[in-house]
Amino acid sequence: MKILILGADGYLGWSMTASLAKDNHELILVDNYSKRKYMEDLKRKPLYKMPLVPQRLKNLKKTNKKIIFYKTDCSDYKKMKAIITKHKPDAVIHFAELPSAPFSMLNNKYGWETLQNNLQSTFNLIHCIKDIIPDCHIIKLGTMGEYGTPNIDIEEGWLNINHNNRKDKFLYPRQGSSLYHMSKIMDTDLIWFYVRNYNLNVTDLMQGPVYGIYHDEFEKEDILAPTFTYDDIFGTVLNRFIVQAVAETPLTVYGSGAQIRGYINVVDTIKCIKLTLKNRPQNGELAIYNQFTEQFSVRQLAQLVKKSLKAININATISNIANPRIEKEKHYYNAKNSNIEKLGLKPLKLSPKVIIDIAKYVNKHKDRIDKRIIKPKVNW
Amino acid sequence: MKILILGADGYLGWSMTASLAKDNHELILVDNYSKRKYMEDLKRKPLYKMPLVPQRLKNLKKTNKKIIFYKTDCSDYKKMKAIITKHKPDAVIHFAELPSAPFSMLNNKYGWETLQNNLQSTFNLIHCIKDIIPDCHIIKLGTMGEYGTPNIDIEEGWLNINHNNRKDKFLYPRQGSSLYHMSKIMDTDLIWFYVRNYNLNVTDLMQGPVYGIYHDEFEKEDILAPTFTYDDIFGTVLNRFIVQAVAETPLTVYGSGAQIRGYINVVDTIKCIKLTLKNRPQNGELAIYNQFTEQFSVRQLAQLVKKSLKAININATISNIANPRIEKEKHYYNAKNSNIEKLGLKPLKLSPKVIIDIAKYVNKHKDRIDKRIIKPKVNW
Repeated sequence: MKILILGADGYLGWSMTASLAKDNHELILVDNYSKRKYMEDLKRKPLYKMPLVPQRLKNLKKTNKKIIFYKTDCSDYKKMKAIITKHKPDAVIHFAELPSAPFSMLNNKYGWETLQNNLQSTFNLIHCIKDIIPDCHIIKLGTMGEYGTPNIDIEEGWLNINHNNRKDKFLYPRQGSSLYHMSKIMDTDLIWFYVRNYNLNVTDLMQGPVYGIYHDEFEKEDILAPTFTYDDIFGTVLNRFIVQAVAETPLTVYGSGAQIRGYINVVDTIKCIKLTLKNRPQNGELAIYNQFTEQFSVRQLAQLVKKSLKAININATISNIANPRIEKEKHYYNAKNSNIEKLGLKPLKLSPKVIIDIAKYVNKHKDRIDKRIIKPKVNW
Repeated sequence: MKILILGADGYLGWSMTASLAKDNHELILVDNYSKRKYMEDLKRKPLYKMPLVPQRLKNLKKTNKKIIFYKTDCSDYKKMKAIITKHKPDAVIHFAELPSAPFSMLNNKYGWETLQNNLQSTFNLIHCIKDIIPDCHIIKLGTMGEYGTPNIDIEEGWLNINHNNRKDKFLYPRQGSSLYHMSKIMDTDLIWFYVRNYNLNVTDLMQGPVYGIYHDEFEKEDILAPTFTYDDIFGTVLNRFIVQAVAETPLTVYGSGAQIRGYINVVDTIKCIKLTLKNRPQNGELAIYNQFTEQFSVRQLAQLVKKSLKAININATISNIANPRIEKEKHYYNAKNSNIEKLGLKPLKLSPKVIIDIAKYVNKHKDRIDKRIIKPKVNW
């Protein structure tokens, strides 16, 4: 297949690129390095230094020459149009969004830039697809955070509603807990508008917090590894806990830690997206999958890390700190996730071995860990 | 009261300004004239030439000196912040949005500008209120079009949902039929995010298509009249039908004309907003009103215009033309609107007299009617 990957430099974008390159797909990569720039501005850094895309591509191109990279901002409509007109991909995987809740809540500037970048990149993409290649399959990363923590079961994207003896089917009601999450809700609304009116075919993946390293492609070549962040702004919780354990600092649980979410290993993220690539929706259909494999409370995750790492002589401690976020700590949470399993996902569930493997990887870069960037500094 | 009016130059903004000025409120007016500029760009013009705000203010200031005007773009955060910091209003009425469905569907540029302007003006406003005067009452114009045409009754903003023996209350599911409508849905989502997390108090008015002239303030002074548009892009349907009748051209019904909507006279719009000004929601409450007084199909409206104007010797004809919009023509529609009546609204319902009064007003400017700008030129 000919696949366009937007946001190819990111944690998921690069993992996806490496994996699809190995499968010998023709790839068109796009990134504007904006996340790198924001991380620099905010003095955050990943666990290891990431070479730029062209440098890493040299290694991938040893086995697959059909890869091209554009350093391009997806919120630039003319440039996006030129790329899509030239390459006419069979599918687009859209990761080109600012991915951080704390970043979006830092101040007015970053809040608006999150809304603007995420909405405009999605708007430009879908406009180009509608006008140039309406049959192209768009795969878009959403987030489980779009649903918030409602007091009813979380269905996969849609809800049948009976009201006063009449019925209709709607997008499941969404309530985000940060501007980042609000931007993803707006994306989903916008996509559904275009799908129902212009018969596009789109897959929207409501993904839970991701953890781990997608290692297949680069076990022997660190240059191919994706960004791994653990800081308060760009890191995700389980990766951060493991880094804290390796760095011999307490695992910082926000508030009581009773907050429940659905989690997924990045290895499974890649498997899920590959499954959806093979299962294009009908024209006029927005297929929504809840992309997580297990539910945990934050406290459970911390305890699991602590318990698992004893086996390799890491004695982690847990520290409950004031919750920097406005969120319900005690809440009902029951999210469905069978759609992706029906496509054939065999999940890699969280286990002591999985945690130990990540810890070993982190430990190789232990001297790079910067403890100053871990404690939360953005409050809302 | 000290009231900030955003978008004070518009059809509703200026009517509101004239009326509140008469009531002797202290008014801070903001507009960047962007609608005038877009109308010029697109070669559309209102029924009569509108002097700029400072010129019209001279007349209002004869009786109320506490009015100030800023020619300012609400999507400029620093300028908005300076105005709100300086004046600290008791309430803000937010009309500063691009109001046209066809405009938003014209091309990528205008589509994005509608999303960007409407979302960013709302974002900036709410950020300033949160940071500077969190008790200030925001009154925001939404649209009945946010709901679309669902197969269940349209409640006023909220829906109680029972699902698998559990229940919760959500924003009523929304499905717009243009990017303009999508932008208003995003606004509502964004506002609710800030209200629930920061205890703001906001009133969101889901208004149906407006018609008429708010005449009280300017019966003898045309210089005080608000913008009256009738063209394919910025005009609303009933005003357009009356202009077509006066201009002796057929009333253009889009498609079968079976589309049902809830309509309101601009006179009632002003009354509704004044009622909500007196009824501030609790902090942490988003009060939503469906602001229309009667439901009609487009066909019924055309027939009512035709029938009413016979009395003043205007023989209107009706022409069904291909629907330029993607919308359901045959659909269920039952929208609730009792909340605003509970506050005390005595509606001015549509009648032959109301139609004749508007027609007489239009007739004074008959020579200015440009027939070329009435037929729909934007298709989606």
